[in-house]
Amino acid sequence: MTAGSDGADGAWVLGIDSGGSGVRVALARADGTARSAPAVSSSPAVTGADGIDADSLLALALPPARALMAAAGAARVDAVCVGAAGMASLGGDLRARLPEALRTALGVRSLALAGDAVTAYAGALGLRPGVVVAAGTGMIALAPAADGGGWRRADGWGHLLGDCGGGAWIGRAGLEAAMCAHDGRAGGSPALLAAARERFGPPESLPGQLYPRADRPAVLASFAPDVGRCADRDPVAADILRGAAAHILRSAAAVRPGPGPVEVALAGGLFRMGEPLLAPLREQAPLLLPDATLTPAEGDPLDGAVLIAGALRRGAPALPDDRALLTLMHWSDPSDDAS
Amino acid sequence: MTAGSDGADGAWVLGIDSGGSGVRVALARADGTARSAPAVSSSPAVTGADGIDADSLLALALPPARALMAAAGAARVDAVCVGAAGMASLGGDLRARLPEALRTALGVRSLALAGDAVTAYAGALGLRPGVVVAAGTGMIALAPAADGGGWRRADGWGHLLGDCGGGAWIGRAGLEAAMCAHDGRAGGSPALLAAARERFGPPESLPGQLYPRADRPAVLASFAPDVGRCADRDPVAADILRGAAAHILRSAAAVRPGPGPVEVALAGGLFRMGEPLLAPLREQAPLLLPDATLTPAEGDPLDGAVLIAGALRRGAPALPDDRALLTLMHWSDPSDDAS
Repeated sequence: MTAGSDGADGAWVLGIDSGGSGVRVALARADGTARSAPAVSSSPAVTGADGIDADSLLALALPPARALMAAAGAARVDAVCVGAAGMASLGGDLRARLPEALRTALGVRSLALAGDAVTAYAGALGLRPGVVVAAGTGMIALAPAADGGGWRRADGWGHLLGDCGGGAWIGRAGLEAAMCAHDGRAGGSPALLAAARERFGPPESLPGQLYPRADRPAVLASFAPDVGRCADRDPVAADILRGAAAHILRSAAAVRPGPGPVEVALAGGLFRMGEPLLAPLREQAPLLLPDATLTPAEGDPLDGAVLIAGALRRGAPALPDDRALLTLMHWSDPSDDAS
Repeated sequence: MTAGSDGADGAWVLGIDSGGSGVRVALARADGTARSAPAVSSSPAVTGADGIDADSLLALALPPARALMAAAGAARVDAVCVGAAGMASLGGDLRARLPEALRTALGVRSLALAGDAVTAYAGALGLRPGVVVAAGTGMIALAPAADGGGWRRADGWGHLLGDCGGGAWIGRAGLEAAMCAHDGRAGGSPALLAAARERFGPPESLPGQLYPRADRPAVLASFAPDVGRCADRDPVAADILRGAAAHILRSAAAVRPGPGPVEVALAGGLFRMGEPLLAPLREQAPLLLPDATLTPAEGDPLDGAVLIAGALRRGAPALPDDRALLTLMHWSDPSDDAS
């Protein structure tokens, strides 16, 4: 054991963020005094019939983790937090196999397995109470329940059942309005039709470009910035974003702990759209989400994973452990101490 | 050549309807004096990288066609109409290979290759002028252009780009409202949540049931009848169907030949829902589709294919030939007469 991982202050922790585009890893001191730059894999972990594949995640996360440890002179890490998109529904293999694998490979004593909404929460708000709205291609709102006994979530059901107000939702509404204008149907938007033509080519070619792809939600979401750009001169685009903002606020309202003042952090790439979405959020918040302070997220889900791992090393993070969204594990007698 | 296929009156024609659930075939006299019951395949034609596969369609259509011919004592058929879902965008292989194959196999002298919206039109309206709205899982409106030079279509862009007001659109809106109620978001429908629970089980299991399937639009559309059943007591469901009816009327309005009186035929399985959809159609038609008479379809796309084949045998159907949606072919010197 190196001096660096000897005491609580000097111990190392690892954050892992597994998302649709890749796996990101960062090494940090448990007390937050130092942190590496993120190491990023070029491909995402594979999802099979058993959900997210643990071997595939380990193959992408361990080499960069070992490289970061070598560079920092860390012989082991005391705590790891793995945040993964789909942890609740697709995390069975991770829950079954990561604990032993990470103990063996890195000498880990504490492990947190979190949904990416939980790491987004911690990245956005730290361990403060509040609500996070995480919006990229999808959209989910999350908050610790008022009684501390778990998480309350709203939406996050994917592009055919919800994710209302997220990138794919906005992009799909925009493309519907574009095709409407193309057909000469009432309610269409010539501005969105022009934007769709610019991004995708002839409108008739859109079905052939979209339906055969596996990443249809991402294709739809790629049009959301165009809807944002049209909003200041096109009433249909402005209406779509007003609707998206209303959905986002209603989801936040559904999970807020109570009627009192609450901080609502806006996390995820969708909010990079800026004023076209932020203005209707501010406008409608007094009615749909009263007494809320809307704030930009402080950090991203990898920041959140590092923060949770650090808190875990020091005891337990002040966040609810409810198995589906956040599972915490500690081993009092690590195997590598016995060897 | 048998006596039965000798003259125009005694000639035999064949209708083929290729859809998502299978291939249906019917044999009839060109003059309409006799028609077989439909023969139905148990699987649909395969769609590959080149679109709908001609060999696969022939393998499903020719054996029942030959059985019908044998039963009727027909040695050959003079005209065939093949209607296929996706003919416009996925019909390349059919256009390239069906003509020669059907001439060789059945002695065909005239062939029509039609989009299923065109056979739906002919099934619904015969060869009369008007507008057809074909709504099942999807939704498309079609009418001959006022100048007779082609077809005007509106929507039919699939469940992520349009098909607004169709079965998948209604079902998706209903499931969104169900999940909304499940989360405690404003705007949800407890009645639709109860209906979703009854059809699909626990709401949390819905993403896992829906997203891995290839027939997602059909799964969504399977919930449309539930939305219909809730409409008389649930304002959210009623609102969804009012919106669907408005979309259907706007699509019909976009393709109508002009401002004068027009017959609009409602074709496809969606209208079996009855009053929950028909009532808002009637209510909003005076505003969104003035001077239109809404009528139920007289027949289905297979009826339309038989009708087009019969008209083709007698000359040419009074429907626009525009390559993408309807291609007509005649051979004045059939190869089997030369042999």
